[in-house]
Amino acid sequence: MSINNFLYPKSVAVIGASNDEKKIGYQILYNIISNNYRGAIYPVNLKDKEVLGIKACVSISKIHQKIDLAVIVIPAEFVADEVEKCADAGIKNIIIISAGFSEVGGVGRVREVKIKELAAKYQLNILGPNCLGMINTGGNLNATFANAKNKKGRVAFVSQSGAVCSAVLDWAEDKNCGFSKFVSIGNKAVLDENDFFEYLLDDKETDLVVAYLEEIKDGARFMETVSRLSRIKPVGILKAGQSSEGAKAALSHTGSLAGSNEAVMAGFRRAGVINLENLEEMFDLLLFFARSRKIANNKVAVISNAGGPMVATVDLLSKAGLGLEDFSDALKKKIQAVLPLIVNVKNPLDLIGDATAERYKNALEQILKNSDFSFVLVLLTPQSSSEVKETSQAIAELAVKNKNKTVIASFMGGESVYEARKILSAGNVISFDFPNQAVDMIYEIAEYQKDKSGLKNYKRNFSPSTGKIRGEQLDYMASLKMLKKYGIDTIPTTRIRKESDLAKLKYPIAMKMVGKKLIHKTDQKAIALNIKDGNEAKKALSDFTALRKVKGNYCVAQPMGKGLEMIVGFKRDKSFGPIIMAGMGGIYAEILKDVKTEIADMDNKRALSLIKKLKMYPILKGARGQKAYDIKNIVKLIINLSKLAIKNKNIQELDINPVFVTRKGVFAADVRIIY
Amino acid sequence: MSINNFLYPKSVAVIGASNDEKKIGYQILYNIISNNYRGAIYPVNLKDKEVLGIKACVSISKIHQKIDLAVIVIPAEFVADEVEKCADAGIKNIIIISAGFSEVGGVGRVREVKIKELAAKYQLNILGPNCLGMINTGGNLNATFANAKNKKGRVAFVSQSGAVCSAVLDWAEDKNCGFSKFVSIGNKAVLDENDFFEYLLDDKETDLVVAYLEEIKDGARFMETVSRLSRIKPVGILKAGQSSEGAKAALSHTGSLAGSNEAVMAGFRRAGVINLENLEEMFDLLLFFARSRKIANNKVAVISNAGGPMVATVDLLSKAGLGLEDFSDALKKKIQAVLPLIVNVKNPLDLIGDATAERYKNALEQILKNSDFSFVLVLLTPQSSSEVKETSQAIAELAVKNKNKTVIASFMGGESVYEARKILSAGNVISFDFPNQAVDMIYEIAEYQKDKSGLKNYKRNFSPSTGKIRGEQLDYMASLKMLKKYGIDTIPTTRIRKESDLAKLKYPIAMKMVGKKLIHKTDQKAIALNIKDGNEAKKALSDFTALRKVKGNYCVAQPMGKGLEMIVGFKRDKSFGPIIMAGMGGIYAEILKDVKTEIADMDNKRALSLIKKLKMYPILKGARGQKAYDIKNIVKLIINLSKLAIKNKNIQELDINPVFVTRKGVFAADVRIIY
Repeated sequence: MSINNFLYPKSVAVIGASNDEKKIGYQILYNIISNNYRGAIYPVNLKDKEVLGIKACVSISKIHQKIDLAVIVIPAEFVADEVEKCADAGIKNIIIISAGFSEVGGVGRVREVKIKELAAKYQLNILGPNCLGMINTGGNLNATFANAKNKKGRVAFVSQSGAVCSAVLDWAEDKNCGFSKFVSIGNKAVLDENDFFEYLLDDKETDLVVAYLEEIKDGARFMETVSRLSRIKPVGILKAGQSSEGAKAALSHTGSLAGSNEAVMAGFRRAGVINLENLEEMFDLLLFFARSRKIANNKVAVISNAGGPMVATVDLLSKAGLGLEDFSDALKKKIQAVLPLIVNVKNPLDLIGDATAERYKNALEQILKNSDFSFVLVLLTPQSSSEVKETSQAIAELAVKNKNKTVIASFMGGESVYEARKILSAGNVISFDFPNQAVDMIYEIAEYQKDKSGLKNYKRNFSPSTGKIRGEQLDYMASLKMLKKYGIDTIPTTRIRKESDLAKLKYPIAMKMVGKKLIHKTDQKAIALNIKDGNEAKKALSDFTALRKVKGNYCVAQPMGKGLEMIVGFKRDKSFGPIIMAGMGGIYAEILKDVKTEIADMDNKRALSLIKKLKMYPILKGARGQKAYDIKNIVKLIINLSKLAIKNKNIQELDINPVFVTRKGVFAADVRIIY
Repeated sequence: MSINNFLYPKSVAVIGASNDEKKIGYQILYNIISNNYRGAIYPVNLKDKEVLGIKACVSISKIHQKIDLAVIVIPAEFVADEVEKCADAGIKNIIIISAGFSEVGGVGRVREVKIKELAAKYQLNILGPNCLGMINTGGNLNATFANAKNKKGRVAFVSQSGAVCSAVLDWAEDKNCGFSKFVSIGNKAVLDENDFFEYLLDDKETDLVVAYLEEIKDGARFMETVSRLSRIKPVGILKAGQSSEGAKAALSHTGSLAGSNEAVMAGFRRAGVINLENLEEMFDLLLFFARSRKIANNKVAVISNAGGPMVATVDLLSKAGLGLEDFSDALKKKIQAVLPLIVNVKNPLDLIGDATAERYKNALEQILKNSDFSFVLVLLTPQSSSEVKETSQAIAELAVKNKNKTVIASFMGGESVYEARKILSAGNVISFDFPNQAVDMIYEIAEYQKDKSGLKNYKRNFSPSTGKIRGEQLDYMASLKMLKKYGIDTIPTTRIRKESDLAKLKYPIAMKMVGKKLIHKTDQKAIALNIKDGNEAKKALSDFTALRKVKGNYCVAQPMGKGLEMIVGFKRDKSFGPIIMAGMGGIYAEILKDVKTEIADMDNKRALSLIKKLKMYPILKGARGQKAYDIKNIVKLIINLSKLAIKNKNIQELDINPVFVTRKGVFAADVRIIY
C-alpha cells in the first residue's frame, strides 16, 4: 500500500497526547504543533479536555473526522486495542512509539504478533513499535519525540535504532544539516526499510539516502529496491551486528535474528550500496551528503598553510588511489599572478605558514573558476599570522558562489578554529575536523560513481525454500549428474564396485571414497592421488576396505586432474538467496582465503567482474607472459552454477572443490551438494 | 652533548625580542615571561632599551652574563652571524625560530650548511631552524611563539612540522591535555628527533611519547634509541610522506629527501613503534595517552543506553580481536542488585534508552570496583530521558576514584553532549566523539603491549656504504659462492661450456643463461625447465646460441628443484641498513604479494617471527595434516642472509628467487646480487 498518505497526512491524531512536559506524549504533540504542521491535529487523552491548547478527545473512536495518521504513545499493553479502534475509525496509517514489544521478548513478542495480524487484517501502514517516530520536512511534519527542529535538506535518513536517531538529530542541529525524510523504523513489525527505500525512488525531495540497519529480513526486496535506488541516488548504509558477537548483542537488543553477514555484504554490492564501517563514517557521510554537489570527476586539489598536514593528506589520497593531478600551466599562471612569488604553485598548493585570508581566497578562487577539479580540499592549522575566521569567511563565500564544485575544509585545532568551522558549515562548506575524513568520503563517493554505471536492476529470482532442510549430502554420482544437467563439465568418473573394474582404467588416476559422512576426504583418508597403475590402484582399494563397509559409501576413480585448481559453489541465504562463491583452490585455498562472493543472478558481466576481483586473476589472465587460462569457460561455469542455484531451491549448499581450470576447458573434479 | 641544559636553562636570551605584538619576537618573550620561567631573561633588540618591561641589550655580545639558551628570531640572512656571536659568548644551546633555510632551497640551503658548520665547530646544540620552538613544562619554560599555556602532562611530543605543533597546542588547550616536553624540531639542522628520544629515555617527567616525522635521516640511531625507549614508554609516530606523491610533496616542503617507506616501516617494527596512519589517529593517541592508566589486560567492558551504537561497537571490538569477555556471575549479581530488573546484565551492558545518571553510575561503579577489566567504554546518545550532564559527572567522579582503570566515554550527538564531554575530559575520562576511535586506540595499545615483551635493544650493525654504487650484477657463480660462504645451501650448479658437458649430468635438469643483463630470465627466454635428457638439453643449449654470444653470458645447469618455492633477499637502505625480505615464491609471488620485510639483525626469534607473519606460514607448518616444511632451516637461511648483508656493505641488493623449501633442507636455486 502506498505510504504517501502516511508521510504527508492531512490530519494527525496523537493517542496518548499529554500536558505533562516530561511525557513523550507531550513532546510528540509539541513537535507536531511547533513545526508548522498545516493539517488538523487531534490529541487523544483520557482525562484532559485540552492538550497544549488543542481540544482533546477521550478516545480515537469519538473524533468522527477523517484522520490520515495516528501516533500511539501509550503503554504497550493497551496498544493493540487502540490499533483496532484506529482501524475501525478508518485510519490506515499508524506510528507506534511505545516500547515493550519484541525487543523485551516473551509477552512483548506476543503483542507484536497481534499488531502484525491487525495490520494484515485491516491493511494498515504501521511504523514501529519501539521507535522515535518520523519527520517529513517537506510536509512540515515532525512526529517524533526528539528535541529537534525541522531543517529541510536533500538527505533521507532511515534508522532501525532510535538511539542512533537521537544522536543524529542532535548532531545535525549542531552541524546545520537538514533532512528530507527522517524515519525511525524501530522493530519494523509492518513497515520496514524497504517500504521507505521504495518510496524514495520517486521522492523529488530526496537526492541522497543514508540508513542504519541491524538486520534485513527481506534481502531480495532490498536488492530489488536499492539496486534501482542507487542508480539514481547514492545510498550509504551502516549495517550493525556484522560480527557474530555483534549479532548476538543485536539479537538481545532488537529481538531480531541477523542473517549471514557475508550475504548482506554481497547484497550491498549487488545493490550498489556504499558500505559504512562505523558510526563515525556514517556521520561523515551525512555531513558530506548534506553539502556535496554534482560530481563530475575524482580530481582533488589541495590547498594548505601547513606543509606537514598537507604531506600527510597527499599520502592518504595516494593510498586511496586518488592521485593528485597537477594544475595546468594556464591555471598555474593565473594562480601565481595572485600569490606572492615565494609560493611554489602546483597541486598540492602550500600557501606557507604565514598565509593570510586573502592568499587563501585568491588561490581558491582561481581553482574554482578556472579548473574542472570537482573537489577542493582546504587545510588550515592556526599559526601566528593565520586569519582563521576571515579565511573561513572567504572560503564560505566562494563555496556559495561556485555551486558546481565541492569545497571541503579541514581546520585543525581547538578553540581557535571552532568559530571558523561554524562559518564554513553555514556557508555550505563540508567541514571535517581531520583531512582523512575528507579523503575517506571522496574515496567512497568515487567508488560509488564508478560502480553506478555498471549497475543493473536486480530482480527476485528465488523464493524461500519450502521443503524440509535435511542437511544431508546428495549421492555423489547424482551430484555429478546435476552439474552436467546445468552444462558444467566434470572429470569422467567411474564407480569402482570390484577390483576387476580397475583393469579398464587409463592411468594415472585419483581414487576416492564418497558417502554421506565423507566430507573432508583428505583428513578422512578417503582419497588417493597419482595412482600410476593397476597394482597401486588395488592397494588403494584395499586401504579403503573399512570405509567401503559403511553403508552408502562407495569408491570412484577419475583421471588425475590437470590445470589450476579453483573452488566454486554457493550457499543459500534465507534473506538474500543463493550466494555464489569462487576462489583459489588447492593448498593455498584455505590459507590465502582468495574467495569472493556475489549474489546469484549472474550474467557475463557480473560473473567476469567476480573473477576479476580475485587476487589470482592475474594468474588466470596469464601472468609473466604465460598463456591465459580459459576465463570464458570459468564465466560460463559461474553462470551455470547460478542457474542451478536458482532453480533448485532445495539445495542449501554446493561446493565444487577442486575445479580444474585449463587453457581450454574447466572441469569439476569433486562436488558436494547439501540439500 | 647533553641537552639537559638546553631543556632546563637557568638563563635565556631572546635575540630579536620585540615590543611589537605582531612580531614573533614579542610572542616568544611574552611566552617565556608569562609561564613563570624562573631563570634570568635577556632580550636583545637593536633599538629598544626595554622589551616587555625587561632591560634589553643591543647585542648578545654585550650581555656579559652566563646564558644557557639563546632563542634567535631575526631574518634568516643575519642568523649565522648571531650564532657565531653566541658561540663567542660561550652559549652552547640555541633555538633558531627563523625560516628561510633549506625549506626554501637555493640560498637557504647554503645558510643551513653554514649553521651546521658552526654547530660542529663550536659544539652547539641547535634546534631548528624554521621551527616553533620548545616547551618544557617541568622547567616552566615556553620558548615557542604559539598561543599556548604550559599545562603539565606526562606525554612528550616531538614534531618535524611547526604547523602540526600549532594545531596540537590549540587542540590540547581545548581538550585539557598537558605535555612534559613539546619540541618543534623544524629543519633539524643539528638536533633531531633522536636527540630528544634519547633524552626521554631517562626523563622522569615523561611516560609516553608521540611524534610527527617526515623523514628519519639516521635510521640506525633511531632504532637504537627507540627500541630502548619503547620498552619503557609507548612511542606513537605519524610518518608523513609515505607515498611517493607524499614524499614528493614533503621534499618541496621541508627540503628533505625521505628514505624508502618500506625501510621506515621495518624500522618502526624493529623499534616497537605504534605506527599512526593519519592525523586523526595522532590526535586520538595524544588524547588517549594523556589520560590512560596502567594497563593490566585487554579486557573491555561496554556500557550503553543505546542498543544500536552498542552493537556497532561490539562489531568493531570483535573485528579488532578484542572480543568481549562476559562478566563473572558474582559481578553480574552485584550489578543486577543495583539496576532495574528490565536490564539484562551481561557484557556488553545495555542500560536501555531510559537510563538515568544513577543507572550509569551504579553499573560503572560495580564494574570498576569488582572486576579486573582494564578498560570500560561508556556509550551514550542523548535520548528523551537521558541525564546527559549528570551522567558525565557521575562517570568523571568514578574515573577519578578508580585510578587503575581506563574509562573511555563516547557521548554521541551535538549541542546536547558538548558540556558533558568537557566534564568527562576534566575528570580524566578519555572522551571520544565516536566509539571506533576508542576501539582503535585500545587495539593499538594492546598490540604495543603484546610486542613490548619480545622487544630487544637494536644495536647498529652497519655503516653507510662508502664504495661506489655500481648497480651491477655480480657474476653468477661468484654469487653462489658468496651464498655458500655464509652457510646458505644452493642447488648444485654446473657451468656448461660446451655440448659435451651435458653428457655427465643427471636428468631432469633446468638450464639457464646468466649474465649481467639477464635479470628477468623467463621474459628474456634465458631459462629452460624440466629438461628430461641429453637431447632436450642440446636443443636448449642451441636455443641459447644468441644469448651465449653476448660477452660475459654463460650457461649453467641444475637438477630440477623440488619443494615449495620461496623468495628471500635484502635491499640496503641508506638510513636503516639492509632490509631483509622473505615471502612466497613461484607463480603466486608477484600476484599475492605475500612478502614481509624486517631489519637485518636477525636472531632465531626475529627470523621465526618474520616467517610467522607470512600468509603462507600455515602451509610451511603443514596445512591439512601434511608434514611440516623445514622451518628450522628457513630460519637459519634468514639469519645467514642477515649476516651476509651486514658484512658486505658493498652489496646493495640480493635476491634468491626461488629458494626451494623441502621437508628437509632449503636450497637456493637462483640468485642475483647487485653491488
